[in-house]
Amino acid sequence: MIYSFKNDYSECAHPRILQALAETNLVQTDGYGEDIYCRKAIELIQEKIKNASADIHFIAGGTLANIVVISSLLKPYESVISAQTGHIHVHEAGAIESIGHKIHTVESEDGKLKPTDIQEVLDVHTDEHMVRPKAVYISNSSEVGSLYSKKELTDLSQFCRANHLYLFLDGARLGSALTSKYSDISLAEIAELVDIFYIGGTKNGALFGEAIVITHPDLKSHFRYYLKQKGALLAKGRVFGIQFLELFKDDLYFQLAQHANEVADKLAQEIQNQHFKFLSLPQTNQIFPILPNHLIEKLQVNYGFYIWKKIDEQHSAIRLVTSWATQEKDIEGFILEMKKVKF
Amino acid sequence: MIYSFKNDYSECAHPRILQALAETNLVQTDGYGEDIYCRKAIELIQEKIKNASADIHFIAGGTLANIVVISSLLKPYESVISAQTGHIHVHEAGAIESIGHKIHTVESEDGKLKPTDIQEVLDVHTDEHMVRPKAVYISNSSEVGSLYSKKELTDLSQFCRANHLYLFLDGARLGSALTSKYSDISLAEIAELVDIFYIGGTKNGALFGEAIVITHPDLKSHFRYYLKQKGALLAKGRVFGIQFLELFKDDLYFQLAQHANEVADKLAQEIQNQHFKFLSLPQTNQIFPILPNHLIEKLQVNYGFYIWKKIDEQHSAIRLVTSWATQEKDIEGFILEMKKVKF
Amino acid sequence: MIYSFKNDYSECAHPRILQALAETNLVQTDGYGEDIYCRKAIELIQEKIKNASADIHFIAGGTLANIVVISSLLKPYESVISAQTGHIHVHEAGAIESIGHKIHTVESEDGKLKPTDIQEVLDVHTDEHMVRPKAVYISNSSEVGSLYSKKELTDLSQFCRANHLYLFLDGARLGSALTSKYSDISLAEIAELVDIFYIGGTKNGALFGEAIVITHPDLKSHFRYYLKQKGALLAKGRVFGIQFLELFKDDLYFQLAQHANEVADKLAQEIQNQHFKFLSLPQTNQIFPILPNHLIEKLQVNYGFYIWKKIDEQHSAIRLVTSWATQEKDIEGFILEMKKVKF
Amino acid sequence: MIYSFKNDYSECAHPRILQALAETNLVQTDGYGEDIYCRKAIELIQEKIKNASADIHFIAGGTLANIVVISSLLKPYESVISAQTGHIHVHEAGAIESIGHKIHTVESEDGKLKPTDIQEVLDVHTDEHMVRPKAVYISNSSEVGSLYSKKELTDLSQFCRANHLYLFLDGARLGSALTSKYSDISLAEIAELVDIFYIGGTKNGALFGEAIVITHPDLKSHFRYYLKQKGALLAKGRVFGIQFLELFKDDLYFQLAQHANEVADKLAQEIQNQHFKFLSLPQTNQIFPILPNHLIEKLQVNYGFYIWKKIDEQHSAIRLVTSWATQEKDIEGFILEMKKVKF
Repeated sequence: MIYSFKNDYSECAHPRILQALAETNLVQTDGYGEDIYCRKAIELIQEKIKNASADIHFIAGGTLANIVVISSLLKPYESVISAQTGHIHVHEAGAIESIGHKIHTVESEDGKLKPTDIQEVLDVHTDEHMVRPKAVYISNSSEVGSLYSKKELTDLSQFCRANHLYLFLDGARLGSALTSKYSDISLAEIAELVDIFYIGGTKNGALFGEAIVITHPDLKSHFRYYLKQKGALLAKGRVFGIQFLELFKDDLYFQLAQHANEVADKLAQEIQNQHFKFLSLPQTNQIFPILPNHLIEKLQVNYGFYIWKKIDEQHSAIRLVTSWATQEKDIEGFILEMKKVKF
Repeated sequence: MIYSFKNDYSECAHPRILQALAETNLVQTDGYGEDIYCRKAIELIQEKIKNASADIHFIAGGTLANIVVISSLLKPYESVISAQTGHIHVHEAGAIESIGHKIHTVESEDGKLKPTDIQEVLDVHTDEHMVRPKAVYISNSSEVGSLYSKKELTDLSQFCRANHLYLFLDGARLGSALTSKYSDISLAEIAELVDIFYIGGTKNGALFGEAIVITHPDLKSHFRYYLKQKGALLAKGRVFGIQFLELFKDDLYFQLAQHANEVADKLAQEIQNQHFKFLSLPQTNQIFPILPNHLIEKLQVNYGFYIWKKIDEQHSAIRLVTSWATQEKDIEGFILEMKKVKF
Repeated sequence: MIYSFKNDYSECAHPRILQALAETNLVQTDGYGEDIYCRKAIELIQEKIKNASADIHFIAGGTLANIVVISSLLKPYESVISAQTGHIHVHEAGAIESIGHKIHTVESEDGKLKPTDIQEVLDVHTDEHMVRPKAVYISNSSEVGSLYSKKELTDLSQFCRANHLYLFLDGARLGSALTSKYSDISLAEIAELVDIFYIGGTKNGALFGEAIVITHPDLKSHFRYYLKQKGALLAKGRVFGIQFLELFKDDLYFQLAQHANEVADKLAQEIQNQHFKFLSLPQTNQIFPILPNHLIEKLQVNYGFYIWKKIDEQHSAIRLVTSWATQEKDIEGFILEMKKVKF
Repeated sequence: MIYSFKNDYSECAHPRILQALAETNLVQTDGYGEDIYCRKAIELIQEKIKNASADIHFIAGGTLANIVVISSLLKPYESVISAQTGHIHVHEAGAIESIGHKIHTVESEDGKLKPTDIQEVLDVHTDEHMVRPKAVYISNSSEVGSLYSKKELTDLSQFCRANHLYLFLDGARLGSALTSKYSDISLAEIAELVDIFYIGGTKNGALFGEAIVITHPDLKSHFRYYLKQKGALLAKGRVFGIQFLELFKDDLYFQLAQHANEVADKLAQEIQNQHFKFLSLPQTNQIFPILPNHLIEKLQVNYGFYIWKKIDEQHSAIRLVTSWATQEKDIEGFILEMKKVKF
């Protein structure tokens, strides 16, 4: 294997993260996130989102974040609406149902939700014989690499507020969304438009960790109880604080995401130069070129990636993911290999 | 604050752990624990427990381990028996009930369970109007610092097997238990006597992480589904493998625990030299001296620790916890302070 | 209101049911279904299904039956497959998710499932990042009034057994299914082909009550624990036994269902005579004529029924349900009204 | 068997109940409790409790009532406090834990809770590492036949309100409590002092059914969703309305309970006349005489009852339960038998 484009978590952490852990290693702190590093990281994130009253909590991963957040959003008879491609629907082994809640799914070509999608669900859930939709789950960038524009997210936000629905944004790949050249929205604007969201660290250079941001006042109360009950309060919670402090003290977070986007963009252009099409417009660090199967087979010898979707008998879309750690030479090597095997 | 004896997780990780993370940092691996480091760590632990067919999984912390394990042990109508001091009963915010299961509690002075305790629960749960006890939860060393002898654990194991009860050992502080000078049992013997247990890393020098060991054949199937559903599969699962590899490749795990025990032992002896009594025999890295309240108040100025229990109007038991990182000078400082404030 | 075709539970119980309750009223029995009437009713049903080793339990209603049965079928990480029209998916307020399980839904025009539908779900649920499909939920007659033929149910049964899936049949309207002139399958054959099912009493003349029949040996153990835990064990369980004894001692159950089908059939023929079409072939006691909206509005003055589906701007399908209590004159009155308002 | 004193649900329903069902049998109504009988019964009960704004819902049995009510009272991290003898703790197969909530139990000789008991639980549950007690569960009359005085219930009510705890009264045997000659509290006063409670029908002459009364405004919203989701909405909900209408239209409910108390009282006096003692003061329709084991054995030949508790090697307490259907002659027969076997 020369290089794996399977995921943005194939390497470990950005060196500055490990450095920061080493430097603070023997300092004693209180446990469970009640330490100076977590407090400072929280302040820093509050500044970045321009909301000093937001509540911020750290958690180890995306599925655990989704479990804790959705548990805190819904009463037993309430449900959440998601695109059919949503991570909570497909790839969390029934985690949300396991805590008691139905997920309504909406067909979505681009992995995004629109107000009309949600209205359709509301229209058919009208009495106590059915669950009551109360939250909307979106991801940005989405599971299929797409982005919400400021207009789209504003529309969604207004619709949700008018219909008393909580809007929850899964930001496992939020860095990649915000630094895409196609994005017209800022972190502070996202914090303004949604009720609760998280800033993903795992897929953007952290060892692990996501920062859950709660802006809706009704959702702040007793949140640490949910964290504890779901097993998400880490004894050495400082590990989160130290990492997010490092990521946000000088925009390292955004630099890493931008780098991943840029190498993905270069990779996409090179593939396009060879006259291949894409399943969807390459916008973030996940791109989905459509290649002939015989080419895919040859590329698989030296490169790692997932086959995403069968297109026809001769072609499939593959998924290529870049990260903060992907280097120009990895892109070049892959393109060279493509050219080589084509002939 | 000169030094905190509040917990064995007040510092971060043993330097060798951070070193190992740094050395492997840019190696690409598959996610979710399906990497070479996890595989090697598993083999190493299988050797240490002398059971090549044991299944081993890594997880971020104790409460999450208890959630996942107990979820995998019980059917909806089954329950678990614990000492009233058990971590699952008191200090997990209802995590076990939250996944649907009743905990039967047994009064226990020393934090340990005996076959007669369990028999009493079995005797009164006899039909479908009541839950059906199916698992026994113990911890070693226990929440109050006590230890199971080989005889005690053997008796418990035989009783459980005769009564078709799964025996689950919470080993958040297993290192401290095994290296206590009072312990007569080995890691391999524990693996032989219980059906499922975990080897705690968080409280013994790891950044975080526990290794769940499954020896009972009925409990192995589909365990990763439970991990995923409860949000416990970490994308960068390698972080567990790298740490446990480091901890077990040359007995670092045992050395760290033994160090914690030895400084606790020294601390206990010095306190005893000053004619103070203990709530229970100091055996592991948690000790519970009984001190006059006025002395406690003065010690609190420069030292961190929890007041554990009111003894009488003038006295309380405090809890002092040492770790791999506690140094001789921390002990000496504390003792000096004790002597100073006494006069 | 002259007559309501809204449901098959608009009247109370067949008079023989009330008579049987009155006759046994002061006999003392043990509670919770451990009485002579339940035992006799169980034996009677075992005879009717030609399976003396089937386990049989009584329960108050369909949603409760679905909760208890599905809870007993699935491990925490397992899921159930249903048609999108399935009662468990749409009309139980999230009851199944509330006990922790995902429902996979399959688009189905006729409310029935085919092996290929199930295969599609199996194909995309292949590892621990997703739930594991383990049960298939079907209803006969279905929520849209359709029927499984012997061939269809046999195919489904073989497919499920080959794929280690439990096949669960919701028989809330089983009487109507078995006595339809289009049905070619017997109660005993159904018991042979599925693993667990229930015989609906509520919608076929009982005060309330369904008889859950378990034929798969793995599903019998500890079933009463599930009943008790979900609040389904009734203190005066005899009420179930007395009713099912009455319904099955001389085929009253089948006579009542057949009556409902026959009046529905007559109603359908009369509607067809007036040149109206149907959403689906009328086969059981639920029929779905497509009528002009202006006619519907006028019929609503004196008759009760639900509007089922908008067909076009001028037309809608309505649902008419007959029961054991519907009389010829109710049919005739409705038809007369139709004719009257047409002119 | 001459007569069974095992339970107050050994017979079926009071004849007037069956009569009322027969009289209304063919009237068509809407389903799920949205019928004229339920509406009238609700108004009647609102009058009896002197609270026209109370919400009232009917449900089939006690365990199901406890499940639905407690589910509606608590957030995922909240818990309920009960006496160790509480039905929810011991005899519901883990139903409350099954919906995710911990039950704190308090030792109680007489089956009742006092403010000091609750304070003790509150004192040790202070942060997010533990569940948060939010509701108090009591039963009147209790599982051991005892009663709350007006003073006791007022104290408890004030304490709960001061501490923001919901007070929930299980009234499975409320009739027996209210008509005891030892009781000084009325139905309307109970409705005033607790936040939610139910009026038990099953154990007082109904075929089955309990009326849940909600007086606390925060608890009224969306209650029918809980009912539906837990499988408690009965299609023929009218059956509840018709029964409670009959029970309350002329105080039949109280007459039946009073009768049960009176025959229990007579039974107790006769037993006392024979110089036997009781485990606790006989106050309601459950009495607990302490008898020599050899006498118990002989009584068991012709009479049904449960042995409640071993007192010493020679003696046990038994439980005798009377009902609306117990006749003077049943009491006399039992006493005669006692006298006979004594000699």
